[in-house]
Parts: sequence; structure tokens; C-alpha cells
Amino acid sequence: MKELKQITVIGMGLLGGSITLGVLRNFSGTKAIGYSHRAKTRQKGRVLSVASEITDDIRDSVYKSDLVILATPIYTFEQILIDISDALSKGCIVTDVGSTKLFPHQWARKQLPKHIHYIGSHPIAGSEQRGVEYARDDLFDLATCIVTTTPTTNRRAADIVKRFWIKLGCAVKELTPADHDRIYSDISHVPHVLAAALINANNSKTLEFAGKGFIDTTRIASGPANIWTDVFAANSKNTIKGINKVIAELTKFKTAIKAGDRKKVEQLLKKARDKRTAMIKQKIRKRELLS
Amino acid sequence: MKELKQITVIGMGLLGGSITLGVLRNFSGTKAIGYSHRAKTRQKGRVLSVASEITDDIRDSVYKSDLVILATPIYTFEQILIDISDALSKGCIVTDVGSTKLFPHQWARKQLPKHIHYIGSHPIAGSEQRGVEYARDDLFDLATCIVTTTPTTNRRAADIVKRFWIKLGCAVKELTPADHDRIYSDISHVPHVLAAALINANNSKTLEFAGKGFIDTTRIASGPANIWTDVFAANSKNTIKGINKVIAELTKFKTAIKAGDRKKVEQLLKKARDKRTAMIKQKIRKRELLS
Repeated sequence: MKELKQITVIGMGLLGGSITLGVLRNFSGTKAIGYSHRAKTRQKGRVLSVASEITDDIRDSVYKSDLVILATPIYTFEQILIDISDALSKGCIVTDVGSTKLFPHQWARKQLPKHIHYIGSHPIAGSEQRGVEYARDDLFDLATCIVTTTPTTNRRAADIVKRFWIKLGCAVKELTPADHDRIYSDISHVPHVLAAALINANNSKTLEFAGKGFIDTTRIASGPANIWTDVFAANSKNTIKGINKVIAELTKFKTAIKAGDRKKVEQLLKKARDKRTAMIKQKIRKRELLS
Repeated sequence: MKELKQITVIGMGLLGGSITLGVLRNFSGTKAIGYSHRAKTRQKGRVLSVASEITDDIRDSVYKSDLVILATPIYTFEQILIDISDALSKGCIVTDVGSTKLFPHQWARKQLPKHIHYIGSHPIAGSEQRGVEYARDDLFDLATCIVTTTPTTNRRAADIVKRFWIKLGCAVKELTPADHDRIYSDISHVPHVLAAALINANNSKTLEFAGKGFIDTTRIASGPANIWTDVFAANSKNTIKGINKVIAELTKFKTAIKAGDRKKVEQLLKKARDKRTAMIKQKIRKRELLS
């Protein structure tokens, strides 16, 4: 992309390192700068050549960059925006990879000057592993990336960010930050709470008997606790609303089972089964279940 | 096994057909009789040679059998026991493959004469497929099979049933029917309700964005609605208790998120993560995650 001569990634974890590696693989002539405040991460990143350069000077790292990507925990974003704000070149685009989007948009609106374009990004990629040593240049292949914009978003900047993720291998969808946070609460944040609640409702004696079904149902509960704590805090209203919706559905089952109303129980089960079948069919049709 | 010259399986679905096929593979000289009330199933079963004989006469099917296995939906068990009761040979062992065990024990106590030994079985095997055409002689390889007994159970009969499942490839664990129903409510029936409730709490527009995490979390909700309706009805007290436990855990999360108590949220998430990690480690150590 001729618009992107240099990109900077703030935070060299699994995601950050995979972005710089992906840029080095997919963009010819684009420089990929990495920033990390950890000496060990910088050293590992250099040994593994995950970026063109890795620096410990955050303001220096964004100097002359066309695109700056925040890949640190979400609650560090606002301070980072404050720190880099006047070191950014005019017309620079800033994005991030946070799992919630309303707060990042709010922070950017507050902390960035008018001549800097902020676009939200949420690439749905990662793994249970953490750290730059797990970075891969193909982490984003076939992943979905949500790009969030508002009516005041600079369209040229939005298109550059969308093409950036497409070039890294993503299928891009655009949403408003509000829609993003509501949808991802329902299909990601609330299921995470559910998986954790299900494990916590069991004792270790019972878990000895758990089979593949239980293991699958609770797999997402093995994500890093601190990152998910941030996600719930940054999307608390939607998460609470989502938990209430699930409790309401659980209560429907409870009431029907208690009343011995088999017809109602079967109807609730059938509804869930049919919805899931339709979802899977649609994903197969859209080729989203290939990876 | 020299004790088992002839076994009968009532119901030739995926499980029933896989049992007779497994007997034909693993037991030399044992006759495997199948019963089905459906002409189509009998025909398919004969074409696929899943049993030594397949008959439509239920009383005839159990004649001279040493072991009779009920592999029909759980709510047909009591009527079947009534129908076959006085056609069973003296000393015959009766078992079943139902997903709940308190009711089958109760029905057997009520309907079978003293000289017939009832033992409960719950082989944790199967797939999303249904029907005799999916029967496989290796369906039980590496599966867990719970065998349920009470203080009045005939020990010799229990040992024969345990060895029967081991010979089909299962790892056998023995429980009381009450412990079985409580444990399987927590690790199988309640997770099923949860998966269905999670899908029902979402609309199809939102489900378009569902990724691998959501798909895994809800996979078990694709089981057959009528069979699960029976399971919840046959284990209603435990299921209701289990749903309440999960709602209590969800409420802990909700309260902590609402209060902005990040320390508490992180602690709840960490507890779930640590419990799941311990569970997986134990299963790897016990070689239960090989299949």
C-alpha cells in the first residue's frame, strides 16, 4: 500500500508481534516499527526479527509513521494516546486491537488532535498463548476483523485501515462502536462469563467425570483473567444486560422442567438447535468455517 | 466371556447397533440378537449385518439371553421391562444405556422378578448422527462407561456387566444411581441447558458474528431435542438445582461487574481458569483425552 510507508505497533505481544511480522511478509517496502516497555520483550522480538526495529521510546516509535496500532491492554490506551499525541505526524491514522470499541473511540476523541484520524479495529484472532515468542506472520489469515467508525470518521482513513487488515489476511466488517460492543458482548463476552460460571458451579470431584462436551463448552474460560477483567469493565452495561438475558432463558428452562412441561422444554431445545444449525449453515456458505 | 453365550439389544439405533457390532467383533462365539419395532431399521440392520439376528418379536428376542441391554429412549424402559419380564431366563442380567439412572433402577426394582439382576449402565459415547446406519464396532473404544449399582446389587452380575463394557473398549467407573444423576446433571445436563439458553438469548443478526469460541461453547446444543427433553424430565430435581447453581455464579459476576469491582471479577475468572487447567491436567495424566 503506497499510503503506508511506515507503521508502528505499540505493544509487542502475540497480537502486536504478529502484526509487524504480517506487515513484513505482506507489504513490500513498508517499515514496521515495534515499541515495548519491556527489555525482555524487545530482546526476544529482535532475536526473532518480528519487526524492522524495536524501540523503548514510545514517542520516537511513532515518528513519521502513517499508521499507529495500539496492541497493549485496553486500559493503557488513554495514557498512551496522551503520551504520543503531539509526536504523531499530521494526517497519521491511529487504530487499536482492543476487544471493546466505545471507550477507545471516546479516548481518541478526547486525546487526539483534529488532524489525526482514529479508527477502531478488533481483529478476532489470537490463541491461548501469550507473548512475542508466539507471534506468527499468518495469525490473521482467514480471521474476521471488525473496523469501527462513526458518522464523523474520515472515510479515506477508514478505507486505508480496512485495506490494511485485508492485506494481513482478514475478512473485514464495519460496525459502529456501539453495535460492536453490543454484538461482541452477546457472542463473546457473555459466553465467557457463562463458561467461567459453569466451571465455578462445579467442584473438582464432579469435574473428574467431565467429558468432551463439558471441555468444549468451557474452553473459552481458559483465557487470561486480567485481559477479560478489562473487557468486562470496558463493556459493563452490555455484559450485565447479556447476563440478564441468559438468566431469563435459563429461567424459562427451569420453569418448564419444574412444571413437567415436556412440550415447552422440547420447544426451547428445538429452537436452540434450529438457530444453531442455521448459524453453522450460513457460516459454511460464507466460507467462514475454513480455518 | 464364557458367561455370555447370547446377548440381546432392544433398540437398534446408533448405540444399539454399535453394541451388537462390538459384540460380534470382540466376543468369540457370543450370539448378538437385535430387536427393533421398525421394519426399516430391521432391514437396514440386516443389510449391514450389525447383529447375528434382528427380530420384531421382543419376547422372542430375549429368549435364552444371558444379558439384555435396553437401548431405546429412556421413557420406553418401564413398558419394555413389563413386556419382557416373564420371557427372561432365570439369572438373566438386564442393563440399559440411558443417560439417567435413578428411574431405570426404580423401574427395574418394580417390574423385574427377583431372579433377574438389573445393573445400570451409561456409556458416554455417541455422536450427532442417529440411526443404525451409523453404527460402528469401535464406537466404545476409549469411552467412559458408568455402571450403577446399589447395596442390594448382585456383585457377580455387576462384575459381568463391567467386564462386558471393558471388552467393548470402555473405561468403567462404578457409581450409585443417585451419585450418577447428580454428577451427570452438573457436567452434562446443565451444560446442555446453558448452551441452549445462550443461543436462545441471541438473535440471528448477532449470530452472524459468532466465532469459534461461541461455536464451541454451544456445540452440545445441537443434540436431539426429544432425547434431551427425556433426560431433563428423568433428572429434573438435579437439573433445577444445577441451573440454580449456575444462576448464582452468574449473579456473582453480574454483581462484581456492576460494582466495578475488578479485583472480584478477576478472582472469579482466575478461579474458573485454574479449576479448568487442573481438570485438563488430570485428564491428560489419566489418558482420558486421547480420543
